[in-house]
Amino acid sequence: MRYFEDFEVGQCITLAPYSVQAADIISFARQFDPQPFHLDPLDTKTQQLGGLMASGWHTAAIAMRMKVDAYLGDTATLTSPGVDQLRWLLPVRAGDTLSGIELVTVARRSRSQPDRGVLATEVRLQNQHEKLVMTLEATVFVLARHP
Amino acid sequence: MRYFEDFEVGQCITLAPYSVQAADIISFARQFDPQPFHLDPLDTKTQQLGGLMASGWHTAAIAMRMKVDAYLGDTATLTSPGVDQLRWLLPVRAGDTLSGIELVTVARRSRSQPDRGVLATEVRLQNQHEKLVMTLEATVFVLARHP
Repeated sequence: MRYFEDFEVGQCITLAPYSVQAADIISFARQFDPQPFHLDPLDTKTQQLGGLMASGWHTAAIAMRMKVDAYLGDTATLTSPGVDQLRWLLPVRAGDTLSGIELVTVARRSRSQPDRGVLATEVRLQNQHEKLVMTLEATVFVLARHP
Repeated sequence: MRYFEDFEVGQCITLAPYSVQAADIISFARQFDPQPFHLDPLDTKTQQLGGLMASGWHTAAIAMRMKVDAYLGDTATLTSPGVDQLRWLLPVRAGDTLSGIELVTVARRSRSQPDRGVLATEVRLQNQHEKLVMTLEATVFVLARHP
């Protein structure tokens, strides 16, 4: 298990590739973002926008999955207070493979609750053409090994 | 269909109630955020954190669904450049019913592309106890009726 002490500013975590299929895009959209360009490849508006594209919230959820697989799954995480500067830079299309990095920008022991620290990170997701598709600034509380 | 001209600063849109079930929380978490406190009500860590809670990304996706149902579904939306100040203020629990408001804070015609405008909004989601659970600042491009 990783604890707060195992992180440091400047650390760069690799997020392993994740492939996005049309069926996944449509299934997410049906539940959470039923707009035509996320649902129907043949819709006029979809075609005007260059084809089916994943909901931005789907891409954000995929980034979370990539983070859990990369390190959060064996880290003593607590909750997250939120996210800043979530930017959707390019559409994510069916067949795209996303990969990414997460850079630790802040690793600070909590003053009010010294059993934990706060990590701030910058997440950068790119597609298989090495074009950035999404960035965000995340914050999470992590338990310390030695309070 | 609603167009850019149909929005104005100060407009307040009601987001209709949405109930969150344990099965939905677990299903989202299996796909996108497989951490124990989103997956397993009986896990020790889950119990330390007060019980099963929805992934913050699930709550954000639910907010999107509430927005589409309230007005985006019949609005001439284009893409969104991103979101700021996404804040998870309280856990969302199985059985919670979320409701909310969305306040239009900016409604400005695009200078570079006058066929559209940009809307900025503040979303506030609360639970059935009238406690704020999530806030965010959203931005979306909307086609104009009269370019």
